[in-house]
Amino acid sequence: MSGQEPGSEPIIDSQPPAELAPAISLEEVGRIAERVQELIAAGNQAAAWQRLRHLHPADVGLILAGLPRTSSEALLEIMSPQTVTWMLQHMNPVEAGRLGARLSIQSLSFVLDQVNPRHAMTALQRLPLRRAQQVAEQLEQPIAESEILNQEPNTAGALMTPRLVAVNADAGLDEMRAALEALQEDRDRLTYLYVLNAEGQPEGQVSMVNLALAPAAATASAIASPLTAVVSVDTSAQECARLRRHYNLTQLPVVEDGDLVGVVLPDALLGVTVEEDTRQMQRIANVAGERADGPMALSIRTRLPWLTINLATTFLAAATIALFESTLAQLVVLAAFLPVVAGQGGIGGTQTLTLIVRAIALGELVGVRAKRLLIREATLGVIHGIWLGLLVAVIAIIWQDNYGLALVLGLAMLGNMLIAGTVGAGVPLLMRRVGIDPAVASAVVVTTFTDVFGFLLFLGIAQAAISLLI
Amino acid sequence: MSGQEPGSEPIIDSQPPAELAPAISLEEVGRIAERVQELIAAGNQAAAWQRLRHLHPADVGLILAGLPRTSSEALLEIMSPQTVTWMLQHMNPVEAGRLGARLSIQSLSFVLDQVNPRHAMTALQRLPLRRAQQVAEQLEQPIAESEILNQEPNTAGALMTPRLVAVNADAGLDEMRAALEALQEDRDRLTYLYVLNAEGQPEGQVSMVNLALAPAAATASAIASPLTAVVSVDTSAQECARLRRHYNLTQLPVVEDGDLVGVVLPDALLGVTVEEDTRQMQRIANVAGERADGPMALSIRTRLPWLTINLATTFLAAATIALFESTLAQLVVLAAFLPVVAGQGGIGGTQTLTLIVRAIALGELVGVRAKRLLIREATLGVIHGIWLGLLVAVIAIIWQDNYGLALVLGLAMLGNMLIAGTVGAGVPLLMRRVGIDPAVASAVVVTTFTDVFGFLLFLGIAQAAISLLI
Repeated sequence: MSGQEPGSEPIIDSQPPAELAPAISLEEVGRIAERVQELIAAGNQAAAWQRLRHLHPADVGLILAGLPRTSSEALLEIMSPQTVTWMLQHMNPVEAGRLGARLSIQSLSFVLDQVNPRHAMTALQRLPLRRAQQVAEQLEQPIAESEILNQEPNTAGALMTPRLVAVNADAGLDEMRAALEALQEDRDRLTYLYVLNAEGQPEGQVSMVNLALAPAAATASAIASPLTAVVSVDTSAQECARLRRHYNLTQLPVVEDGDLVGVVLPDALLGVTVEEDTRQMQRIANVAGERADGPMALSIRTRLPWLTINLATTFLAAATIALFESTLAQLVVLAAFLPVVAGQGGIGGTQTLTLIVRAIALGELVGVRAKRLLIREATLGVIHGIWLGLLVAVIAIIWQDNYGLALVLGLAMLGNMLIAGTVGAGVPLLMRRVGIDPAVASAVVVTTFTDVFGFLLFLGIAQAAISLLI
Repeated sequence: MSGQEPGSEPIIDSQPPAELAPAISLEEVGRIAERVQELIAAGNQAAAWQRLRHLHPADVGLILAGLPRTSSEALLEIMSPQTVTWMLQHMNPVEAGRLGARLSIQSLSFVLDQVNPRHAMTALQRLPLRRAQQVAEQLEQPIAESEILNQEPNTAGALMTPRLVAVNADAGLDEMRAALEALQEDRDRLTYLYVLNAEGQPEGQVSMVNLALAPAAATASAIASPLTAVVSVDTSAQECARLRRHYNLTQLPVVEDGDLVGVVLPDALLGVTVEEDTRQMQRIANVAGERADGPMALSIRTRLPWLTINLATTFLAAATIALFESTLAQLVVLAAFLPVVAGQGGIGGTQTLTLIVRAIALGELVGVRAKRLLIREATLGVIHGIWLGLLVAVIAIIWQDNYGLALVLGLAMLGNMLIAGTVGAGVPLLMRRVGIDPAVASAVVVTTFTDVFGFLLFLGIAQAAISLLI
């Protein structure tokens, strides 16, 4: 709350340094974070801040985001609003989002109300959209550009910045340079300026390199190159990230009703890519949206529904076993082998699933026929099943000296690995076909299949061949 | 093999187009890929190429990478070496790597021998390092710069390009522009040029924006800003990606013995980030390094060892169950409930594991004490365990009308969810502490714990309380 309360620590710094400090290693950041935590625990906030103030703002932010909430708030109280804003501006959106979640909306709006609105807006855009909206609503002096925060979440409109350079086709070198100069420090983030046609629509781009090398008499259109991609305000963030990644682009112009209204810069897309990959990884495990050190209530809300759904599927597996109660009563040792066939199927199915989900997300399966992938994974399942089946058979003979059991186990293993491969590939491919995110619920569906079929195959074959076993 | 064989299809194009085609949607790419596949199947390679030749090279490459091997080779035969090279140059490294794996080393070296060595080198650097080395060895006219390919894999030295601009501190505007101009088309990829001190070491950078806006009398040192990060040739690719991500950098200068020898550009790092995230996701499932449509032998080599290790852990679980054979003989229905407690623990443990592994990879846990995370996950385990324990107890009463069984199940569930949370967080945190990639083997270790303890708790409590159950 930056020292507005009487009796709080004095603000030690007023202006952030003019130049950014050099990078340090993650280990070094960790060591400083520990020392800072000790100093704060000892009540010495001022000394803690002395440790931080000469670091790069991205490192200061990373350390603040990792501290317990009370410690980071204690430090914020002795940082000036300018320094807090400068720190957010220089963090990447993923880390800024984490830090933003630690700070109260009141603290953030108090800070941003006291700084240059241009800087405040850049800092706001580093935060996740909802949080930024909440902070913007609390500002006493609303920021003119903050209407961008009301764009549909997860679209180019919400990711873009309106601070771009656009000139007419006949603009000369001086005009282009003046337009770029007018952007002040925001110009440093641009790699292109845009060339508009007579209707005001973007028709080309001039790279900063071409601008630097242009002869004195050059016009914008003479040194422009064509635009590879133009997105609209409602293009999804995922599509923007795909365009950047696939076509090696550095920035994307954004149009609304044909007019150029903004530009999506790489740092905004870095956030999308990292968040998207994280969400995808977490979706396979059904923890999407959680943070390892986030609020516990969110973790419960995220995980408990999936754990409960999974409970239903384990009871489906239990019911399968119960069908064979009489067979189990005849040979109790069968129970010991229950986790073997089902467990191997679960692991095999998850291997296939993860591979396919990731390939779909990277657009690697475009034009690859689903049938080819299914046959590939089914074949792998059979090959793995033969090897694992032979292995379990040998172990069963050594351990239980029971050739019948060995045969049953081996066959069940072969069958379940085939099912694991087919289902592990089939479920995500089917989900993609019907337009559902392939990562959602896939793991639960796949392990349900491998559990149920694992028990069904093992106990079913055992029942049919019970005379060989006892 | 680009038409060197008598009787092959004639080469239709000789030079790639001067301007890149605009972006198209992934659905559109998919449709064209299907049509191309049909045309090739009908033996009409020339018509297939007509469909492709007006697309952006990144799209041509994506489609070629998705075709069956024989089809992509058929198309390659009617593309000129210039076009194949141009295509590789404009693909991102992830997709180029996929395509490169489809083409034979002979085809690639044949193609690259016939084009401008500058282009050949850029195309080579798009390929995975090993493949690029193999192709470079086969070239009849070795490329001077190709010594870069002999750098240690997965380091800045292997990722960098030597094509950079460096000037002395007192260089004037004309000198800087001339140096940039000399780079030809490679200059388009740069956002900074470097300023060297008297010893030839990099001491600052000039952005293209500053260069474009510089007054005529400016010197390099006057418009330079300090370097945030300088890496050495043996800095790891992961550290380079972290520096870029964390500090929002666009390019990294690379030094060797103090001399500036190269620059790591964003497209090279995009490859590292995507590959790194993919590998991390795949490591949790133990399929790291595979491609969904890659060679089957690689898939077997990758998965089978893990499946075999996992088999050992399922037999550990089996041995645990076998310890309680007499208890199971007294009440066979216990066997039906075996997958319930163990399965829930496995899911819960994997949820925690995934969350922690990802947070570690993103550097989110720097300065966060391991104890705090362990307590958090253990607490969540207890909360989830109480809910799930009550639920299984209720189901057991309804299904089996056995209050003793309900009690045993509920207690075992509570205990195993606590173990799942503790182990799910503890294993990756411990692995990080001892310097092992937390994703490796974590899932196998965690599910082994939850399986063995799930059976041990459930059957152990049942044995102790057997009089309540029957």
